[in-house]
This record gives sequence, structure tokens and C-alpha cells, in this order.
Amino acid sequence: MHTLARLEHIIAQRKAADPDSSYVAKLNSLGLPIMARKLGEEAVEAVVAALADGKDELVEEAADVVFHLMVLLAAKNIPLSDVMAELDRREGVSGLDEKASRPKEGGI
Amino acid sequence: MHTLARLEHIIAQRKAADPDSSYVAKLNSLGLPIMARKLGEEAVEAVVAALADGKDELVEEAADVVFHLMVLLAAKNIPLSDVMAELDRREGVSGLDEKASRPKEGGI
Amino acid sequence: MHTLARLEHIIAQRKAADPDSSYVAKLNSLGLPIMARKLGEEAVEAVVAALADGKDELVEEAADVVFHLMVLLAAKNIPLSDVMAELDRREGVSGLDEKASRPKEGGI
Amino acid sequence: MHTLARLEHIIAQRKAADPDSSYVAKLNSLGLPIMARKLGEEAVEAVVAALADGKDELVEEAADVVFHLMVLLAAKNIPLSDVMAELDRREGVSGLDEKASRPKEGGI
Repeated sequence: MHTLARLEHIIAQRKAADPDSSYVAKLNSLGLPIMARKLGEEAVEAVVAALADGKDELVEEAADVVFHLMVLLAAKNIPLSDVMAELDRREGVSGLDEKASRPKEGGI
Repeated sequence: MHTLARLEHIIAQRKAADPDSSYVAKLNSLGLPIMARKLGEEAVEAVVAALADGKDELVEEAADVVFHLMVLLAAKNIPLSDVMAELDRREGVSGLDEKASRPKEGGI
Repeated sequence: MHTLARLEHIIAQRKAADPDSSYVAKLNSLGLPIMARKLGEEAVEAVVAALADGKDELVEEAADVVFHLMVLLAAKNIPLSDVMAELDRREGVSGLDEKASRPKEGGI
Repeated sequence: MHTLARLEHIIAQRKAADPDSSYVAKLNSLGLPIMARKLGEEAVEAVVAALADGKDELVEEAADVVFHLMVLLAAKNIPLSDVMAELDRREGVSGLDEKASRPKEGGI
């Protein structure tokens, strides 16, 4: 899972670069609404791929979702580790939840 | 980044469990369209959080997106490493791309 | 097509009502981000219904999309006739477009 | 509201036309997943426009949502009147609901 750490580093480096030199820089120059929109659009494409296409298409769309989510987080100066910490926290909630044998939205 | 590896393992374990015993099992029992829908809905919530809410809300929604994307991938028997490999592949494309000083959708 | 005119009138009336007295009033009391989110979520459900469910489900989800779109427009004080005028305008563009025998995103 | 009736007629006419001759024909030739995806993407753009852009942008995105929803309905051979009947039905539910002074998801 070193991929995401490296990707986060690259995105941080390119954020303020010349918009003509990288896709990340271009997205940042276009502003937060465009970056948010791209995340939503890629998620829609992943939804459609999951229901109508093959595995390869879903892998591509899933990569698009992860990438554009990371661009958005970087634009808001949110480290990916905050999202991982939130997922870890829920896993703990889920552990408790499991003992009680009841599924909850907050748990996993 | 061990979080995602652990999460993938947990999701795989719970996929076929009693739907009353975990949220992952419940989602799987509801079927692929519901799992795909959840991904789309959480992405919409992340889009709105990025534009209208604070960082904490975006962290929570980003965690929801990652979690439901992983549930969907697991339901389709796609290992997360396939998505990471796709992101690695693009980074390579982007490296070449950077030399040519031109942003492309396929690159980063 | 009197349905939409009547619906627009009802939504306008209930916008500022007691949030406990109607769903429209409740949505307005929750604010624009929630109204926007509802539109996005209902659209995702329509996408999934179109690909995975029967006609009845798509009819229901399409009604949800139209309704929440109209709530959002009303919240921004945009009359539905503005949207109809935009559709009429495109139909005109499309007429010209047709002569030139070329499909365009701007036309129909 | 004659706009939608005319638009529905045009879409029905162009559905099976040469994909090079109209945008509607092109969408139909690309298949249901692409038509569903377009609806989802346009809804995401409307969500973003509502939160980040001006009224003109929201009018344009709302027109895109309505148009692509109608293309999808036509592709599934669902008349728009079915959606209007569903909205009328809810308005009736909502009338009852209002008497009881309780907002419900099913009502308006």
C-alpha cells in the first residue's frame, strides 16, 4: 500500500505547479468546485462500471475515484492519514458492535 | 497505510457472514445494485462536504467513499492491489508525460 | 404537463412553512447543501434503477429526481420556466445543428 | 410546460436515427450504461452549480438533468406521463399527510 503514500506526495508537489505541466496542477488551477465535480463524476462512472461493465473497467474507475478523492483532500490540506484514522476508528466501533451482534451504519 | 490492507481483510471475512451480524454482510446480502448505489451516494456527500462543510465532515465522507468502494470491489472479487497497480501504472505514464510538459487525462 | 406547474406552486407555498408540517419545508430548513445532496443521491438511485431494476423503480426514482431538482430551483428562486426556456433554446440550436448533420453537446 | 411534451416527441423521433445525425441518436447508439452515466454526471454538475456557481449555471445544469433523464426514460420506453402520474400520486399522499401535520419521505 505504498502507492497511496507516494501518490499523496506527488499530488502535494504538483498542486501549485504550472497548470500546463501536470493534470494535478490543472485541476487545482480550475478550483475546488471542479475538483469536487470530478470526484462525483468518477464515482458515477464506477457505479455504472460495477453494474454494466467488466472487472477491468471497474478497476480503472476505482483508480479514478481514489485519485480524484486524493486531489480533493490535498486541495483542502487534509492528510490522507486523517481518513485512515477515521477508518481505523470505525473498525474499533465495529469490533464493539460485533460483540453486540448488531450491524450499525457507524460500524463496519 | 496498513489500514486498507486490514480493512480489505475484514471485508473479505464478513462478506458471507450473517447479515444481522455486520454492516458488510448486510450490504452483500442486499446485492450489487445497493452496494454500487451506496458508493455513488457517499461520493455525492463528499462533493457537498468539500463545497459546503468543514474538514471534519469531508474526512468522514472520504472514509465513507473509501469504505464503500472497497465493499464494492470485494463483492466483485477485485483485490485492492489491482487498483493500486493501476494507480502505479498511471504514475509511470505521468512521469513520461511530465517530460513532454503536457497534462493528459491518462496521466497524473 | 400541468403537474409540474402545480408542483412548482406547492413547493413555493411550502418553502417557508413550519419544517414539521411538510417535507419541502423540512428540506428548506436543512439548507441548500442538503437539498443539493438529495438531488445527487436521487440521481444515483435513478442511474442504478435504470441499470439494475424494473421500469416501476425507474419511474419512482425519476419522480424523485424531478421533485428534488424543483425543490433546489425553488430554494435558489429560479422559476422552472427558465429551465424550459433553456431547453427550448437548445431545441433551436439542434434544429440548425440537424441541417449541418453534426451532433453537438449543445444541441439535441 | 409544452416544452417537455415537444422534447419527448423529438427524443422519440431521433432515438433510432443515424448516430451521426443527432446527439440523442448518438447516446442511444452508445447504450443504456452511457445514458445512465450521463444522467448521473449532469446531476453531479447541478449539485456543484447549486453550491458554487451562479443561477445561470444551475439553469443550464438543470436543463441537462431534465434532458438526459428524458433520454434515459425514452430508451427504456417509459412515457414521461408515468413520471408525472407518480408526482401527482405523491401530491395526493402529501395532502393527507398535511392534515396529519407530519412530513414524510413519501409525501411532499
